[in-house]
Amino acid sequence: MIEIGKRAKAAARAMAAASTGVKDEALAGIARALKENADDILDANTADLERGEAGGVARALLDRLMLTPERIDSIAGAVRDVIALRDPVGEVIGGRKRPNGLDITEVRVPLGVVGIIYEARPNVTVDAAALCIKSGNACILRGSRTAIESNTVLARLIRGALADAGLPGDAVQLVEDTSRESVGELMKMRGTVDVLIPRGGAELIRSVVEGSSVPVIETGVGNCHVYVDAAADVSKAIPIVINAKTHRPSVCNAAESLLVHRAIADDVMPKIIEELSARGVEIRGDEATRSYSDAVVPATEEDYRTEFLDLTISAKIVGTLDEAIEHVNTHGTLHTEAIVTEDYSAAQRFAAEVDAACVMINASTRFADGGEFGLGAEIGISTQKLHARGPFALEALTTSKYVVRGSGQVRE
Amino acid sequence: MIEIGKRAKAAARAMAAASTGVKDEALAGIARALKENADDILDANTADLERGEAGGVARALLDRLMLTPERIDSIAGAVRDVIALRDPVGEVIGGRKRPNGLDITEVRVPLGVVGIIYEARPNVTVDAAALCIKSGNACILRGSRTAIESNTVLARLIRGALADAGLPGDAVQLVEDTSRESVGELMKMRGTVDVLIPRGGAELIRSVVEGSSVPVIETGVGNCHVYVDAAADVSKAIPIVINAKTHRPSVCNAAESLLVHRAIADDVMPKIIEELSARGVEIRGDEATRSYSDAVVPATEEDYRTEFLDLTISAKIVGTLDEAIEHVNTHGTLHTEAIVTEDYSAAQRFAAEVDAACVMINASTRFADGGEFGLGAEIGISTQKLHARGPFALEALTTSKYVVRGSGQVRE
Repeated sequence: MIEIGKRAKAAARAMAAASTGVKDEALAGIARALKENADDILDANTADLERGEAGGVARALLDRLMLTPERIDSIAGAVRDVIALRDPVGEVIGGRKRPNGLDITEVRVPLGVVGIIYEARPNVTVDAAALCIKSGNACILRGSRTAIESNTVLARLIRGALADAGLPGDAVQLVEDTSRESVGELMKMRGTVDVLIPRGGAELIRSVVEGSSVPVIETGVGNCHVYVDAAADVSKAIPIVINAKTHRPSVCNAAESLLVHRAIADDVMPKIIEELSARGVEIRGDEATRSYSDAVVPATEEDYRTEFLDLTISAKIVGTLDEAIEHVNTHGTLHTEAIVTEDYSAAQRFAAEVDAACVMINASTRFADGGEFGLGAEIGISTQKLHARGPFALEALTTSKYVVRGSGQVRE
Repeated sequence: MIEIGKRAKAAARAMAAASTGVKDEALAGIARALKENADDILDANTADLERGEAGGVARALLDRLMLTPERIDSIAGAVRDVIALRDPVGEVIGGRKRPNGLDITEVRVPLGVVGIIYEARPNVTVDAAALCIKSGNACILRGSRTAIESNTVLARLIRGALADAGLPGDAVQLVEDTSRESVGELMKMRGTVDVLIPRGGAELIRSVVEGSSVPVIETGVGNCHVYVDAAADVSKAIPIVINAKTHRPSVCNAAESLLVHRAIADDVMPKIIEELSARGVEIRGDEATRSYSDAVVPATEEDYRTEFLDLTISAKIVGTLDEAIEHVNTHGTLHTEAIVTEDYSAAQRFAAEVDAACVMINASTRFADGGEFGLGAEIGISTQKLHARGPFALEALTTSKYVVRGSGQVRE
């Protein structure tokens, strides 16, 4: 791992100096290589799938692991989308001339070496590499054992395209060692690795956040709430709750908890319960929620803190907006929280007082996404407050540097 | 400490909602209280000084600990300077309307609870509190045992001024427990403390960076270089070297290492050695440097990695610009690095390739400072790449939040 780090650091220097044109050429080469070598990729992926099936890997995980010609096309398309994004490197983001004649410029520069730790999906290998290349970084990719054959082929194609463009192949390195130890080593590489980004389950993220001496961008755990306010428009509330919970239950911006104001509960609760139940959602509610239907099972305090990532939702009836805000702030994960209301002041207060990366007013939590936000692509959704918060992409893969131009000034 | 955290979190909510006017009123109250209670502050400070002297605290540390009526005036002046700074909270820093009608706004919000761990200087108590108040945060101040009497009086005055302005006194809490354990507890308060900022010696900073599960902004360790290029203007080089090394040797932006290009060494080395020696600076050099004077003692590899914070400098003669850049990147601490040159390309390459927060061209490293950069004040100088880099102040005490305003949108 030390050797991987050294090579990444050397490659990072070349990447930082690379022009936008050369980086885009490498990206175009990657998109081409993906299409031209689709058969190799699919063969490797089949090997991963067969090993996974034999090893008893869960169906949902195998689904995420599986590649098809269409999925490869879509991965190549995502790389071409990154070409279209503006290169953040070199952007002057501040500056001024000081009274003593010093010219101070604050300029955006790459972070250096980015470490990404992720689980089954092989598309992350390509997405992450593409964003790191565009932002002038070298990256160390630590994927999972489940996807190792697929990732190995993808990394080989990416490295080939880098070399063809005259860039160091070591700008993208896949860690072959998929043991827990390799994650542990990455977390200790302060001074070599500039940032670690864990993408995956809550357990992986927690262990990296707590154990890493390398700075971390914490991503993804979303115990997202939809709060249906007393002044909600019922015709908006029901589709938003259904969409937030059932559109894609396995992702971090899906709703996991429903809060309904007591004053509107009679109007919306029966319909919400009916619609969710019809879609196979298990509702775990407090006593007031259970009074509307026998289909609602009792919720524990633990349920209100759980990211189910499945067709399960916790539910609670609240007496006031304050109670809703308090519940969200104490049970949420600072990810994405939605209010449905036609009351201007309630919307403003919820937006101001809920301590989350994203607050949605009359919109589904599912919109918390780099693409939907118009960032063009995303590395993940940050649930921390430093450096990047919410969906983040190219800019979060850069830092700044002050360049001060003088003419011999000394400090008096 | 858990109780302190709970009170800080509650206070943070009130601070986040406070208007600029109310926050400025509290700051004005602090400046007033400092002047009106100067005698109490000086009495407490005398007690600290006497205890320190009796306990054998080093002279330099006692100097930093000591308050005088003039220093109290200057601390109050710094608080008034913070009043003059623009309130960063609520600034809209981005946003767009999406094709589906969603209005996305990215707005600056306070971080929440800021923990600051610092050593002897009592002025940090006031400076840090003032910046946290202005940026709408609550802070937990963990000062050193050496300054506990002074800090206790200062914290009492600050809390009184907050209360007088209608803000919670708990927005500024001083940790009375100055044992190592209290730092350890702060480092584990993830979820309560939003960021920890260690200010002080290298050892303190390293232990916080390595042990904290709360995100950290790493400050201050500066093994800063001055590189005198082959094309340097000698009349600029010598004053810059002298100023960078001797103007204030005990601070992080003082130069600790001198690199001189071989082609100009005969012109500058004898004069630099003479001037530095005349000011009591011990020079530890390589063989080539020692050939200029018997006053130069041999340097070890360790010397080139040391932040002396004293009248000592390491020195080395290099053969090329590349060698200088390589030496800086492998021995520096990413803080502040200076080149003295009239060669445009050398200046550009040094600025681009040196991986430091601040690069100075023909100016002293001593200018790396929030005040000198025009930021108005500073919390510290960040030597990390995430969130804040270089001198940082109010803005680094904020994060952003996405507010998305819709009209019932669901994701298709």
